Amino acid sequence: LWEFVLQICVPVLQIDHFGFLEDGTFKQRYLVNDEHWHQKGGPILFYTGNEGDITWFCNNTGFMWDIAEELKAMLVFAEHRYYGESLPFGKDSYSDTKHLNYLSSEQALADFAVLIKELKRTVPGSQLSPVIAIGGSYGGMLSAWMRMKYPNVVVGALAASAPIWQFPDMAPCGDFYKIVTQDFAEGGLNCDVNIRKSWKAVDNVAATDSGLRWLSSEFSLCSPLKKTDVAGFKAWLQETWVNLAMVDYPYEANFLQPLPRWPVQVVCKYLGFDPYSVSDYQMLSAISEAVRVYYNYTGSAPCLNTSSTATGSLGYIGWYYQACTEMVMPMCTDGVQDMFEPQEWNFQAFSDECHALFGVRPRADWAGIFYGGLDIASHSNIVFSNGGLDPWSGGGVTRNISDSMVAIVIPDGAHHLDLRYNNEYDPHSVLSARAQEVEYFKLWIRQAKKQL
Amino acid sequence: LWEFVLQICVPVLQIDHFGFLEDGTFKQRYLVNDEHWHQKGGPILFYTGNEGDITWFCNNTGFMWDIAEELKAMLVFAEHRYYGESLPFGKDSYSDTKHLNYLSSEQALADFAVLIKELKRTVPGSQLSPVIAIGGSYGGMLSAWMRMKYPNVVVGALAASAPIWQFPDMAPCGDFYKIVTQDFAEGGLNCDVNIRKSWKAVDNVAATDSGLRWLSSEFSLCSPLKKTDVAGFKAWLQETWVNLAMVDYPYEANFLQPLPRWPVQVVCKYLGFDPYSVSDYQMLSAISEAVRVYYNYTGSAPCLNTSSTATGSLGYIGWYYQACTEMVMPMCTDGVQDMFEPQEWNFQAFSDECHALFGVRPRADWAGIFYGGLDIASHSNIVFSNGGLDPWSGGGVTRNISDSMVAIVIPDGAHHLDLRYNNEYDPHSVLSARAQEVEYFKLWIRQAKKQL
Repeated sequence: LWEFVLQICVPVLQIDHFGFLEDGTFKQRYLVNDEHWHQKGGPILFYTGNEGDITWFCNNTGFMWDIAEELKAMLVFAEHRYYGESLPFGKDSYSDTKHLNYLSSEQALADFAVLIKELKRTVPGSQLSPVIAIGGSYGGMLSAWMRMKYPNVVVGALAASAPIWQFPDMAPCGDFYKIVTQDFAEGGLNCDVNIRKSWKAVDNVAATDSGLRWLSSEFSLCSPLKKTDVAGFKAWLQETWVNLAMVDYPYEANFLQPLPRWPVQVVCKYLGFDPYSVSDYQMLSAISEAVRVYYNYTGSAPCLNTSSTATGSLGYIGWYYQACTEMVMPMCTDGVQDMFEPQEWNFQAFSDECHALFGVRPRADWAGIFYGGLDIASHSNIVFSNGGLDPWSGGGVTRNISDSMVAIVIPDGAHHLDLRYNNEYDPHSVLSARAQEVEYFKLWIRQAKKQL
Repeated sequence: LWEFVLQICVPVLQIDHFGFLEDGTFKQRYLVNDEHWHQKGGPILFYTGNEGDITWFCNNTGFMWDIAEELKAMLVFAEHRYYGESLPFGKDSYSDTKHLNYLSSEQALADFAVLIKELKRTVPGSQLSPVIAIGGSYGGMLSAWMRMKYPNVVVGALAASAPIWQFPDMAPCGDFYKIVTQDFAEGGLNCDVNIRKSWKAVDNVAATDSGLRWLSSEFSLCSPLKKTDVAGFKAWLQETWVNLAMVDYPYEANFLQPLPRWPVQVVCKYLGFDPYSVSDYQMLSAISEAVRVYYNYTGSAPCLNTSSTATGSLGYIGWYYQACTEMVMPMCTDGVQDMFEPQEWNFQAFSDECHALFGVRPRADWAGIFYGGLDIASHSNIVFSNGGLDPWSGGGVTRNISDSMVAIVIPDGAHHLDLRYNNEYDPHSVLSARAQEVEYFKLWIRQAKKQL
């Protein structure tokens, strides 16, 4: 898509919108395409960037490119502060907790609001352009919140796969992993059962030095597994299954990793055996084949690296900091309704970990108070889309709240499938979702024009 | 009213809601009366405290006490951080700009939201109570903004005499002083004309040492006037006329100062002479009589102090800091449409003054972006009331925006007259305004109950 991005712009923004002692500014990166934007006052589709490099999101949000001509819309992709090249303190942005202090969703939303005002002030013909916020995942949460907190700036929002209710006391903490498990249960015979049994097999095999050596070799690990790494190894496997569920798209794609179509089904082909007829070693050989679908679909990975599970375009440390402050999203497993080892949600342990890492403690209730929690009925013009395959749909809005706070469910969709380019393998449900979304955009644009 | 206040409570709040580096907390003062609150789930009227001691606002918001029984409402008066006894850093709160950094409307609104959530969590029977925000002046702006930013926390808001549009590019900067001038023009024959001529008389008389001595004696000033004080002396006079216009109530009252009924008329009795038949000294003798109506109605003031124009219950330094950061409210005079010396709005000079005083520079556009500026039509359930005599009505919302964003104008009302106790001298317009306000409260309460 890079060839279509006409401008890469950098407006100057306040590092701290909510205090005046820190009066420094920084440059935010954003991408603009106006080749379809002909008319004065034509709409602007504004991507509210999430925790990563904006060029990567730009390339993975084909939906906006697909509909730009129909809506005669300008496309803007705004990078979230502290990610990609939008670093408030340059290379020192992550150097300590003092510099990280301005990494928050409230600051990011304020950036977007100031940026849109600045665009309208400086781009001729855009002054009366209705702006629609679009985002997926955390970026979808930002889109929804943008409309809630700045309805003067955006006329509506598409919040795709946005788990705005994945917060304390809003959704059951176990839903996320239950949905992952369902995906694998539907991916092939015995698939979830074998994964559920694999944890004990890892423990058994990893109990001896020869077993550790075997695991290292069988999984082609880049660094040999040590006894103290076993918990981390299992966490890496768990995250691999989660990621596969998230990107279980109906066609070959490269979002978190390059993958075949319906990757969960491909993975499950390796895990269809009778769970009671195999040894621990046979079980883990199969698991090793299965994870290679995720880590080595292209066949070019010399070894598997357990310290990372997905694309380098995401900003993991920044997101960890956000989770350690306001993005407190409880998750838990019981090993019965899901295929993972039982683990309760332990806020205190998480808080202690955050304190040790960043010197901050998460505030469990804040996001709910600031963003409204379950009580969002007084807002308007937000479409929440969720995929039935997507574990994040457990914390999403999947029922209509009012005439203008609408839920669209895509039963055979994974994580924000609707935001991707049209594809010949797209299921009907996602085509229908996209069509509905465009109808809402047109409605909001008409409403906005009427109010002028 | 103190005898009716059953509880004085202090919840513990974050000093910084928007950052996690400063993890300190402070105690916010609030007053509660529940003698009229009988039923489980009965409404809560929540006063969003402004820039001063909450007990003073509590005593000057008789409207809430007058309607508590009819609505069977709990009354809560919450003190704004950095005012009264709600000092985030105790006696150091104002010691330097570092400690002042958390004095902002955004932080104050977050305090109110957290406090309401905390009340509902801890007061038995209040969990489902609809909360209505009520405030006057800056407190009224906070009420309106509370509904805009936290519609999950308050079901509606009464914003009395709230100049939410007294910001750059929202209202003409001269309206404020024009309305003051109209009040004096209607207060008595020649009243505005004589005040307009008095500034030159001050300059003439103050040009000599004997003139300065005469002024000091004629005005019974506590400190003798020096040549360098003359601008300050005129500013003090100007603020006196402004304050009189603000508190031009139809009965004896003690808000900013103890005053007779319709004080502007009383003042204007001293200023009715033919402006072309008096000497500068005669003019200023009359002005001196006139200002004594404001500063010495009780007859107990031994001398007049030009360094202060109103009650000590207001926090002037705190408000100055807020004006120097986000509360940028342009004011100007031309000496033609108003009775003051011409003075343009000079943002740069103001910014420099702020920088010298507090080390901060105001952000002229921020409040407009964050609180929506003129584009607030997508919100709901806010009543904006304004008095026709009140200079702040120039920056207020005085026309209906939608069915549920409503303006009430009280033609013969001064600054938030509707928030005061019922009085036998109340004009019909304010009685009608209060009745409408109560009807809206009942409507919002019904709506809220329906949604349960």
